[in-house]
Amino acid sequence: MSASHGEFDLIRRHFRRDQPLRQATLGIGDDCALLAPSAGQQLAISTDLLVAGRHFFADVDPATLGHKSLAVNLSDLAACGARPLACTLSLALPDIDDDWLQAFAAGLFALADAHGCELIGGDTTRGPLTIGITVFGEVPPAQALLRSGARPGDGIYVSHGPDQGLGDARLALHLLLQDQDLAAWPATVRDQLLQATRARLEHPQPRVALGLALRGLASACCDLSDGLSGDLRHILDASGCAALLQADGLLQAASPALRLQDTSLALSYALAGGDDYELLWTAAPEHHEQVLAAARSCGLLATCIGQIEADSGLRLQQADGRIVPVDATAFDHFR
Amino acid sequence: MSASHGEFDLIRRHFRRDQPLRQATLGIGDDCALLAPSAGQQLAISTDLLVAGRHFFADVDPATLGHKSLAVNLSDLAACGARPLACTLSLALPDIDDDWLQAFAAGLFALADAHGCELIGGDTTRGPLTIGITVFGEVPPAQALLRSGARPGDGIYVSHGPDQGLGDARLALHLLLQDQDLAAWPATVRDQLLQATRARLEHPQPRVALGLALRGLASACCDLSDGLSGDLRHILDASGCAALLQADGLLQAASPALRLQDTSLALSYALAGGDDYELLWTAAPEHHEQVLAAARSCGLLATCIGQIEADSGLRLQQADGRIVPVDATAFDHFR
Repeated sequence: MSASHGEFDLIRRHFRRDQPLRQATLGIGDDCALLAPSAGQQLAISTDLLVAGRHFFADVDPATLGHKSLAVNLSDLAACGARPLACTLSLALPDIDDDWLQAFAAGLFALADAHGCELIGGDTTRGPLTIGITVFGEVPPAQALLRSGARPGDGIYVSHGPDQGLGDARLALHLLLQDQDLAAWPATVRDQLLQATRARLEHPQPRVALGLALRGLASACCDLSDGLSGDLRHILDASGCAALLQADGLLQAASPALRLQDTSLALSYALAGGDDYELLWTAAPEHHEQVLAAARSCGLLATCIGQIEADSGLRLQQADGRIVPVDATAFDHFR
Repeated sequence: MSASHGEFDLIRRHFRRDQPLRQATLGIGDDCALLAPSAGQQLAISTDLLVAGRHFFADVDPATLGHKSLAVNLSDLAACGARPLACTLSLALPDIDDDWLQAFAAGLFALADAHGCELIGGDTTRGPLTIGITVFGEVPPAQALLRSGARPGDGIYVSHGPDQGLGDARLALHLLLQDQDLAAWPATVRDQLLQATRARLEHPQPRVALGLALRGLASACCDLSDGLSGDLRHILDASGCAALLQADGLLQAASPALRLQDTSLALSYALAGGDDYELLWTAAPEHHEQVLAAARSCGLLATCIGQIEADSGLRLQQADGRIVPVDATAFDHFR
């Protein structure tokens, strides 16, 4: 890996570890890293670029940033049903702050170690704070979960922890940003909501174990990064299908903290909030019980939020039975 | 691959191609790409992050930038003796300029196609202009060229085209920047020199074929990105060796354009100029003729510039026979 710009010591000081490599043949310190998937397996590869001021606050706690930068990438592997192997890290830094780097590395390595994901290379340079991570996982041939396999009649599922739900992360972000639309609530309510949801924004847990458990069960899968309605559309586009969501199912999967405050807002955040890093998948009806059991085996809930249909488009059946196109539903909050 | 931030269409419009995949099983458009090296081979992986204002001028021709962004990464695969397979591209863009993106993609794809390197995924976001590329190549087990294999007695070699040499790229950069130290030359001389060297700065040709030809011949290898003295030190550090460079060998490999103007400056640029993206390698004396033949088979020259020695340190034997530590040689130009 190119250790250019005289910052080789930076990599060595903060990102090179003494422990022997387990996944890779060659790690940090040469022009390339060397990695081989297990015999017969494919490598699943994903890359994300995070920019200060857009994906995170420039003054965010560096350990939190280290965690989240890797988490959003591991979430892509989870969505694919791949087992994490390794990652590379590219960092542009406005200046060299050893304390910051040490904390960033600690946050990143804690999550990496929890998932058996080795840092095998990288590049550092001066520049506006930017983090580029590429992750590598392995998956047996034809077992990767793709976006393109949804079929009419399949159920649509999302994962969430028992006391967590869709929209948690975006709610925390809006509370931190002191969003006008939430200003009507008393400060104590806002504080409680932020306390309940902040970890979901800052320390998302990639659903790697669930992705593995859904191999052979899910017909299509992606992770929730941009918000349910947008992410589901990727599955619908790739699969050539339509979807009918059920408002009551969606509410079950929505942020519990927000649901207690405002049902309508909870539905809106569940549909359009981003950054949840849960899995969104489809499965044939005969796999329903196995799907629920797969999630339970990972300490998670799988909630059925609707059904895949023929044709195209995304619709929502409201609690009163009316069916509305999701486009026409009001999500002014996110436009 | 996460196609976040509503810019999925940008990827589709400019970077998704109609032609079928040859190397990868799954390309752009899902959470992950899927790639498997040929049976029994290892993946060589390298990543580089290029930042506007540091690695390139923000107003550089976008096709040139597309070429160079991939070239510096392919150069890492070349240094490893790996055959290119695929790459991912992360782009932070201050705004969406379709003409710019089309030209950037054209420059990148022209080089990618020349090396059979498939774009299999990426990420785009708004932000300060930044380009992150990760490349994947394949190499048989134990055949990768590493930095750590140099042994006392090995010759030290660099590659260059018949009318090209080390320092070309940095000379072009300094001429473009109207560097004070070169201001004494007449404008016509500066124009001629720039004309002779500019392509070496803007369109470096990664020495992929040479890297493949050096498998089994080179004992250690890296590419010249930061300048010979720094890059050679990486080999010396990794191999636990010293090196004695010969000024006359080095001059043979130095920028021909600059050599005609100023021998001493040519030596200085050859030692400390960066961005050449030639290969620098070591080989046992018994392989000398094969090494020269390997380079010739790729249309290149291999020039022996010195010898690996026991102990540590980097020294230069000048034309007058005196041996000086390279640290003590004057390279004020680059400090």
